[in-house]
Amino acid sequence: MPDSHLLEFFDSPSDQAFYIEHVNEEFTSVCPKTGHPDFGTITLRYQPEAVCVELKSLKLYYQSFRNEGIFYEAVTNRLRDDLAEAMSPRWLQIVTDWRGRGGIRSRITAEYGEVPSRFTTVHGDATAGT
Amino acid sequence: MPDSHLLEFFDSPSDQAFYIEHVNEEFTSVCPKTGHPDFGTITLRYQPEAVCVELKSLKLYYQSFRNEGIFYEAVTNRLRDDLAEAMSPRWLQIVTDWRGRGGIRSRITAEYGEVPSRFTTVHGDATAGT
Amino acid sequence: MPDSHLLEFFDSPSDQAFYIEHVNEEFTSVCPKTGHPDFGTITLRYQPEAVCVELKSLKLYYQSFRNEGIFYEAVTNRLRDDLAEAMSPRWLQIVTDWRGRGGIRSRITAEYGEVPSRFTTVHGDATAGT
Amino acid sequence: MPDSHLLEFFDSPSDQAFYIEHVNEEFTSVCPKTGHPDFGTITLRYQPEAVCVELKSLKLYYQSFRNEGIFYEAVTNRLRDDLAEAMSPRWLQIVTDWRGRGGIRSRITAEYGEVPSRFTTVHGDATAGT
Amino acid sequence: MPDSHLLEFFDSPSDQAFYIEHVNEEFTSVCPKTGHPDFGTITLRYQPEAVCVELKSLKLYYQSFRNEGIFYEAVTNRLRDDLAEAMSPRWLQIVTDWRGRGGIRSRITAEYGEVPSRFTTVHGDATAGT
Amino acid sequence: MPDSHLLEFFDSPSDQAFYIEHVNEEFTSVCPKTGHPDFGTITLRYQPEAVCVELKSLKLYYQSFRNEGIFYEAVTNRLRDDLAEAMSPRWLQIVTDWRGRGGIRSRITAEYGEVPSRFTTVHGDATAGT
Amino acid sequence: MPDSHLLEFFDSPSDQAFYIEHVNEEFTSVCPKTGHPDFGTITLRYQPEAVCVELKSLKLYYQSFRNEGIFYEAVTNRLRDDLAEAMSPRWLQIVTDWRGRGGIRSRITAEYGEVPSRFTTVHGDATAGT
Amino acid sequence: MPDSHLLEFFDSPSDQAFYIEHVNEEFTSVCPKTGHPDFGTITLRYQPEAVCVELKSLKLYYQSFRNEGIFYEAVTNRLRDDLAEAMSPRWLQIVTDWRGRGGIRSRITAEYGEVPSRFTTVHGDATAGT
Amino acid sequence: MPDSHLLEFFDSPSDQAFYIEHVNEEFTSVCPKTGHPDFGTITLRYQPEAVCVELKSLKLYYQSFRNEGIFYEAVTNRLRDDLAEAMSPRWLQIVTDWRGRGGIRSRITAEYGEVPSRFTTVHGDATAGT
Amino acid sequence: MPDSHLLEFFDSPSDQAFYIEHVNEEFTSVCPKTGHPDFGTITLRYQPEAVCVELKSLKLYYQSFRNEGIFYEAVTNRLRDDLAEAMSPRWLQIVTDWRGRGGIRSRITAEYGEVPSRFTTVHGDATAGT
Repeated sequence: MPDSHLLEFFDSPSDQAFYIEHVNEEFTSVCPKTGHPDFGTITLRYQPEAVCVELKSLKLYYQSFRNEGIFYEAVTNRLRDDLAEAMSPRWLQIVTDWRGRGGIRSRITAEYGEVPSRFTTVHGDATAGT
Repeated sequence: MPDSHLLEFFDSPSDQAFYIEHVNEEFTSVCPKTGHPDFGTITLRYQPEAVCVELKSLKLYYQSFRNEGIFYEAVTNRLRDDLAEAMSPRWLQIVTDWRGRGGIRSRITAEYGEVPSRFTTVHGDATAGT
Repeated sequence: MPDSHLLEFFDSPSDQAFYIEHVNEEFTSVCPKTGHPDFGTITLRYQPEAVCVELKSLKLYYQSFRNEGIFYEAVTNRLRDDLAEAMSPRWLQIVTDWRGRGGIRSRITAEYGEVPSRFTTVHGDATAGT
Repeated sequence: MPDSHLLEFFDSPSDQAFYIEHVNEEFTSVCPKTGHPDFGTITLRYQPEAVCVELKSLKLYYQSFRNEGIFYEAVTNRLRDDLAEAMSPRWLQIVTDWRGRGGIRSRITAEYGEVPSRFTTVHGDATAGT
Repeated sequence: MPDSHLLEFFDSPSDQAFYIEHVNEEFTSVCPKTGHPDFGTITLRYQPEAVCVELKSLKLYYQSFRNEGIFYEAVTNRLRDDLAEAMSPRWLQIVTDWRGRGGIRSRITAEYGEVPSRFTTVHGDATAGT
Repeated sequence: MPDSHLLEFFDSPSDQAFYIEHVNEEFTSVCPKTGHPDFGTITLRYQPEAVCVELKSLKLYYQSFRNEGIFYEAVTNRLRDDLAEAMSPRWLQIVTDWRGRGGIRSRITAEYGEVPSRFTTVHGDATAGT
Repeated sequence: MPDSHLLEFFDSPSDQAFYIEHVNEEFTSVCPKTGHPDFGTITLRYQPEAVCVELKSLKLYYQSFRNEGIFYEAVTNRLRDDLAEAMSPRWLQIVTDWRGRGGIRSRITAEYGEVPSRFTTVHGDATAGT
Repeated sequence: MPDSHLLEFFDSPSDQAFYIEHVNEEFTSVCPKTGHPDFGTITLRYQPEAVCVELKSLKLYYQSFRNEGIFYEAVTNRLRDDLAEAMSPRWLQIVTDWRGRGGIRSRITAEYGEVPSRFTTVHGDATAGT
Repeated sequence: MPDSHLLEFFDSPSDQAFYIEHVNEEFTSVCPKTGHPDFGTITLRYQPEAVCVELKSLKLYYQSFRNEGIFYEAVTNRLRDDLAEAMSPRWLQIVTDWRGRGGIRSRITAEYGEVPSRFTTVHGDATAGT
Repeated sequence: MPDSHLLEFFDSPSDQAFYIEHVNEEFTSVCPKTGHPDFGTITLRYQPEAVCVELKSLKLYYQSFRNEGIFYEAVTNRLRDDLAEAMSPRWLQIVTDWRGRGGIRSRITAEYGEVPSRFTTVHGDATAGT
């Protein structure tokens, strides 16, 4: 069951602005309609205000979706909400890329705060190269 | 025969803005001039106003073009019109990439509403890498 | 001999703005200096005003350069002039990518009208991946 | 132990503005939490004010992190601070791309001064293609 | 010895604006510090004012650096200065991509005049894909 | 409906042994179980005894499967049987590569006569790179 | 829990020898030592004696390992044993490619019967290109 | 018109066995049925007996097919016959890879003498990556 | 300091023959001549007799070379000797791929016992694609 | 001027058979006919009898061809002869891959002694991917 209390944080090592991106290519949840597993890549980008997310805890948080029945669109918004609330970053962006279902592959993007223009350019189609 | 009544929708899971992209690499229709089949990739991008398109119904809708005689330019505008009317999204973009005919491959782009600049950057040539 | 009368057109299927790109990877002409053949890829992008170019006629028009002695720079401007005059599009862009000669490969770009910014971003170097 | 005194410089060969990028695919440091080695690619971009960094000395400086226990976020800010202080460039950008840990790979970006927009576009995800 | 008198030119075939890019993947010079050869790719982009550079002469000019001892930064500025002075283009851009030395690969960019924004976007890291 | 009478042939241009391979990346048929379309690549390799298959007729023959409900395994054997009977080649090989269904992609191989060892080496997994 | 009773079969459509390969890029199980999920690609190759495995049932069988704690080596041998027993093929090969753990990625191969030499050539390293 | 008298030769520089491969990616001829140009890549492999073919003369010989109406199968056998007769090599192999026509791309292989097994392994499908 | 006592083993899960391959892309040691770090990829392939190497212990064993001064050739033979002695496998193969030094990249292969032919085919050049 | 006395050697670290491959992507010499520089990749594979070639000396030996006028075929045989004489290896193989001249790229292979079959498989065409 998704559990944002698994997330841990550490103090940002600098007062100056810097940008962080973590790409998890091993995300899986379950389609609530068919019961079949979904496989995706989750990209988290953010600028820390005071804290940074600790990587191992982020991994465990992602793993907590393993047997959750949840749509692509919902999981993307859920990740955005959980991480934004827990970290209070300057801004945050979640991009989820999903392997094909019936020949269709998908990318969903959700954001919190004002994401700099450098992170709002689409590069290639969804999950190309996955 | 193309049939937009095949499309089904579900309520958007969030009031906050987010972006959706579905890429179908298995689209086929028929050239009305030569009768030969055309093969293409359809990219749909949109921001939901109230509803999201359900993936299986989208697949069936695309399949309804299988034996339709229709030009590249016409199918692209038709997809834009059908989906925009059925979903009333904030905005919507259709990009169709077609495999070569006589050594020429093609990309057609049609849009509804004000597409954010992040989705109006050309990435590579048409169907490169298909 | 290049012959723009080979070009045929059909009425645009929509009054709304949409964008068309045709990529021909099988263009060849002759170097007027050395007499050796040149091989290139021609990308045509445009927004139709009233008519669209028919693909088979475009192919025949391109083939009419096969034994013409003409420099890279001249053929690019010639294609722009011929197609712009024949179609009167809102705008038009020609990008020609040429395989190497003496270890140097080239890209020439010519435009007509006001090309939208989405089509004026350089992606990679000339003929990379050809 | 990281040692910025290893860095050497030479006078810029031109008064006109130009841009320099050095990519080191062979960076390694140690995770302070687990003691396991981290492997990354360091991209340094800058515009010289008066001096340019000498490549061999840059390599030795990077090697001085080999057995240092330091987080991704901290090493990125440290590189930015050391190089900006030592060179006083017009501007400077450090992008670090880290191979995966537990299925998650990361990119951290830190900057000094006003980086031109041409260098603030994200291209692909972190460490893709490493 | 670098010799810009090797460069030859021909009249631009059009009064309308168009853009030219020549990529030479076979550039070599010598490191003045170690005496070892350097290998790079030289990208020249420009908009002609009155003349275009002839390709064979450009190749010979590049070859004249073969046994010259010269740093990456200096050769890039030298190419910019020589070509800008000889052609008086509207604008001109030189991008040099150098294979690795000690695990570090480099890209240097020098410009003359006002380069359009379409040519000032960074695409990938230095020499990626060389 | 699959129709091998569409196939036409021409006399082999040489008495000496030579090998022919035709790759059709635009094959589609229908899954007899689900009714959904299947998309595949068909590779035909053979050594002519007396005749070679004409390319346009081969294309029309492949197109005759477009609306046929038939399993991967059956279509592969059917193609082998039809072509071997119609051409009487020295030997013949059919390799069919199918895009994924439910995350699983497939390659089926059927042969007639004694295929030389050069054509019986597996290169990569099924449909990799499609 | 792995359950080979999920597997279903259909009669082979031909008496002549032919080869079948199914590649599942969406396999996941759990590491019995750490409890963390493992992600892999399963390649099944076989020559049917009397029956072929039905694709949807194969998918469900693979999914039954989702929450099973089992080592790479054990799951590979288990798949070989289950499928060989259920199908009694002429021969059968299982290749499992696993994403990295601690920077190490793995490929395990298990076989039943006499696998033809065409399927016993190693192509590239484990999971390259996954 | 194809003219093998364009071919020139020079004495082999060694009495010991060695192997030569020349790949020409810029071959074009004309389809005798449709009159449309064909584009292909010609690979020549051989072991010299006494002479080697001079590269520039080989290029001119290939160019002499530019406006010849000739089928894929015929041109491949013609190249084999011309080159084998003119050079009397120990053995010789011609592989021609042709860009798609109607969605089908082709590879034809013709040989003279006993080609060593190292050169009779098929690597990938026809013209993949062209 | 390299320490083979770090290696741990578990009983092979099957009596039937199967093959194991572990690829470590994060190996580093030190050049004994220059003192500069070397970076390589280590591929271990073997067939277990009675035991399999445990992955985490293999990683720690590889890490024990981190600050060891040792040539490419020596480290490859050392790995072969250590692992063969500790595991007593049916056979074992070590392939080490090293990033370039002075523009030269290297692959060293050492073996123990009779390696099956399927694992003794060279695929591509050293470290291509690293 | 090519000078094999630049080559240095060290004692083989093992009595057991092992294989060595060094790939130099930065080779350049001069075409004796046109005076233009040639650029190539040199692959050296061998099994040491008593000594191994030292990498830095190999690099300097290769650099000694920089301004030598010598054909592809001759340089390949020269490298084979020089290295075989200086090292007396069990066997030795030289593969030279040359960038295109006039649209034709080349691969030349020369060998000494009995090269194991694992090293006599052709992988792809000449210089593909260079």
